[in-house]
Amino acid sequence: MTAKLTAVLDHIEAGLDGTRDRWFDLLRIPSVSAQPNHKGDCAAAAEWLRAELAAIGFEAKLVTTPGHPVVLAHHSGTAPGPRLLYYGHYDVQPAEPLELWTSPPFEPVLSEGPRGPRISARGAVDDKGQVMMWLEALRGWHAVAGGPPCPVTVLIEGEEEVGSVNLEPFLAAHRDALAADIAIISDTGMWDIDTPAVTTRLRGLVYTELTLHAAERDLHSGLYGGSALNPINALTRILGDLHDASGRIQLPGFYDGIADTSPAQMAEWAALGFDEGAFLGDIGLSKPIGEQGRSPLERMWARPTADINGIWGGYAGAGSKTVIAAQASAKVSFRLVPGQDPARVYESFKRFVADRTPADARVEFQLFGTAPGIEIPTDSPWVQAARAALADEYGRPAVLMGSGGSIPVVESMRRLLGVDSLLMGFGLADDQVHSPNEKFEWRCFHQGLRSHARLLAKLAAP
Amino acid sequence: MTAKLTAVLDHIEAGLDGTRDRWFDLLRIPSVSAQPNHKGDCAAAAEWLRAELAAIGFEAKLVTTPGHPVVLAHHSGTAPGPRLLYYGHYDVQPAEPLELWTSPPFEPVLSEGPRGPRISARGAVDDKGQVMMWLEALRGWHAVAGGPPCPVTVLIEGEEEVGSVNLEPFLAAHRDALAADIAIISDTGMWDIDTPAVTTRLRGLVYTELTLHAAERDLHSGLYGGSALNPINALTRILGDLHDASGRIQLPGFYDGIADTSPAQMAEWAALGFDEGAFLGDIGLSKPIGEQGRSPLERMWARPTADINGIWGGYAGAGSKTVIAAQASAKVSFRLVPGQDPARVYESFKRFVADRTPADARVEFQLFGTAPGIEIPTDSPWVQAARAALADEYGRPAVLMGSGGSIPVVESMRRLLGVDSLLMGFGLADDQVHSPNEKFEWRCFHQGLRSHARLLAKLAAP
Repeated sequence: MTAKLTAVLDHIEAGLDGTRDRWFDLLRIPSVSAQPNHKGDCAAAAEWLRAELAAIGFEAKLVTTPGHPVVLAHHSGTAPGPRLLYYGHYDVQPAEPLELWTSPPFEPVLSEGPRGPRISARGAVDDKGQVMMWLEALRGWHAVAGGPPCPVTVLIEGEEEVGSVNLEPFLAAHRDALAADIAIISDTGMWDIDTPAVTTRLRGLVYTELTLHAAERDLHSGLYGGSALNPINALTRILGDLHDASGRIQLPGFYDGIADTSPAQMAEWAALGFDEGAFLGDIGLSKPIGEQGRSPLERMWARPTADINGIWGGYAGAGSKTVIAAQASAKVSFRLVPGQDPARVYESFKRFVADRTPADARVEFQLFGTAPGIEIPTDSPWVQAARAALADEYGRPAVLMGSGGSIPVVESMRRLLGVDSLLMGFGLADDQVHSPNEKFEWRCFHQGLRSHARLLAKLAAP
Repeated sequence: MTAKLTAVLDHIEAGLDGTRDRWFDLLRIPSVSAQPNHKGDCAAAAEWLRAELAAIGFEAKLVTTPGHPVVLAHHSGTAPGPRLLYYGHYDVQPAEPLELWTSPPFEPVLSEGPRGPRISARGAVDDKGQVMMWLEALRGWHAVAGGPPCPVTVLIEGEEEVGSVNLEPFLAAHRDALAADIAIISDTGMWDIDTPAVTTRLRGLVYTELTLHAAERDLHSGLYGGSALNPINALTRILGDLHDASGRIQLPGFYDGIADTSPAQMAEWAALGFDEGAFLGDIGLSKPIGEQGRSPLERMWARPTADINGIWGGYAGAGSKTVIAAQASAKVSFRLVPGQDPARVYESFKRFVADRTPADARVEFQLFGTAPGIEIPTDSPWVQAARAALADEYGRPAVLMGSGGSIPVVESMRRLLGVDSLLMGFGLADDQVHSPNEKFEWRCFHQGLRSHARLLAKLAAP
């Protein structure tokens, strides 16, 4: 360890009270991007971060968008070296339902949990806590060395929780300012509280809504039953056909292009000792569904899915109403893995539905987003640097994880900026992200902050 | 025609202005049984009818129930003869959505339509208009002859539109007062405006709701997709299996007990010249669904159906939410025909679902009502009398129709009072029953009223 890093870590340790105070200040700003009444709070959170970045030597500004502003900041570093682009978001999910919170969502509380102190607040981990870790690591480097050991650009958006609709135009318009060798994102998790992780796989997504229209109006099921097409009957017939009995998705060509998971990768995942029984038991289930003959982690990280996320049509009130509805709708999404082309999957789904649609029905589709599956080469110098930093901090190797979810910005930055991402995050599975009583373990935050300080040293002088 | 009937008909003709005024008075009372703020209006409608019945010589009273009151009245007639039990209901469906009405729903309007004058109001036909026809026929007999030509009991309930939940206890508690040889119900329709009809078949109903429970809470489809049971996926698989490719319902034993429609009956229906293309064209459809190889009227009147009347689960808001829901629900109903046992159909459906329910799911059922299919012997003296009365009025034979819907009171009266029903009604298919701009053709009302006056003569002296 260089003396400089030692000094940075010492400085971080000495300043933890101030770190926590600043983190809490940010958590107190209810920057809920989805709710118009919090528009001013989103702007306040952005300004708070801009000022903090300016205070540690960054050239920092706010860039307005049709939605919430983006924080954009740059520091040329104390030495040349790889150009790092930190990405995070200051917006948070709505806190509702408020009555399920044990403390007010925007009044952060430090309390003792089963694994030590924890901070409870909306955004505690997603993503304010994760952003604060690297912001405080940069603060440590600023205090000790006058700035980060290599050039750093910071991009913190305020619309991640509402689909980042203005992010791609922003990226395209600021290509030069965002030029970087690697993007660093802290919005993922650890394997467990003792085992750090780098996430190297993300599933992609195709999210659609379809509406099947039949008669021009709702019909009386007595008068028309047996003659008139029932769009709910038809929709269940179509969607009930998505999987075969073995759990395989029946869209033609759906699995085209997916490579077999390598035996080495399978062995690595097997070594993690994932307890699927406990994983499912926690949510009241016992039998995994999905493709037969695949290991649990392979199913979640390396195999695609088809899920109906919502369905509605006809009468849903109390009691009975003998109606044949005029239409029925569903939201259907596919999680994708590398090799699958989102556009082809969407086309295949539309054909799959059309092939099964009765003569009189008309189907309407909406597409709410596509992202391909992502696989980051595990032997890249960036992943190696992160693993080394984490190993130094935790005294044990970091594991390489997949994530069943999607982080669309990874694909956006790859496509628009030509830059890959390094995903090093410190959340835990039980952090209640997007739910009431979101929390972040103090230990995760503390070691995450130290890991980010170490990562800067590794990346600057690999 | 007896001189007495001629006098009654003359009296009716001379008093049509008063008839219309009284009918409008009743229509102005917004007796919406489903809406608690109209509780007083329901009581007012009941009292209005009680007073009208008392004014024409009936011993009339209101009987309170846990819901809305029942009007119960009796006249011993001017001579002995068959005991008639008139059934009707004074409650109406909610008028919402109000913005779709072209005139206020509780301000009856007489206007010129394509087939002559029509009355528009909520309840114009269902069932206030149909009740007023026989009430005014009874008034005519009272004025001319001092009362109906045979004993008449009147039962008008106020909860037909909310499932008649208190009717069966009422019937059971008033068996003696309701003793009758035939019940007369005017809540059905004509074949067309020129062709009167007696309805001799009603389909029965089993109406259920099921909820399929999976995980204890909503899940993130990225993190859990591919491992955790999706109850919407499962529900569509189960319900998508209700019919086979030929439209046959796949519940084991579902068709047990159904007799083939007789060739004579088939020939009679064929002679009606039902235009299924026009019937479906009116609602924007062109291809009938249902069992192959059956005629349209057979499918609607003499064959059972299975319809999903509502389905819901997961996210139904704008845009995307990557959720795997904790549960999914549907309302499923079966229209039954004579020979099918509603209890056995319900049990078969529960088994059908259970057989297809994945290991981790739990299914909950609710039953909202059962009624068997009804077939009234077409050669009964009651049907013959009605056909004769209608032929006299219209100058052409009345047809014997089926109805795809259910009138549960028919079965209740058969079971609890031991009395069959005679279904003679004057609605048309386009009367917008239960919809905005409900109307009743003046011609239908006028000839229906005259037909009821004639029917009394036929029944009293067959």
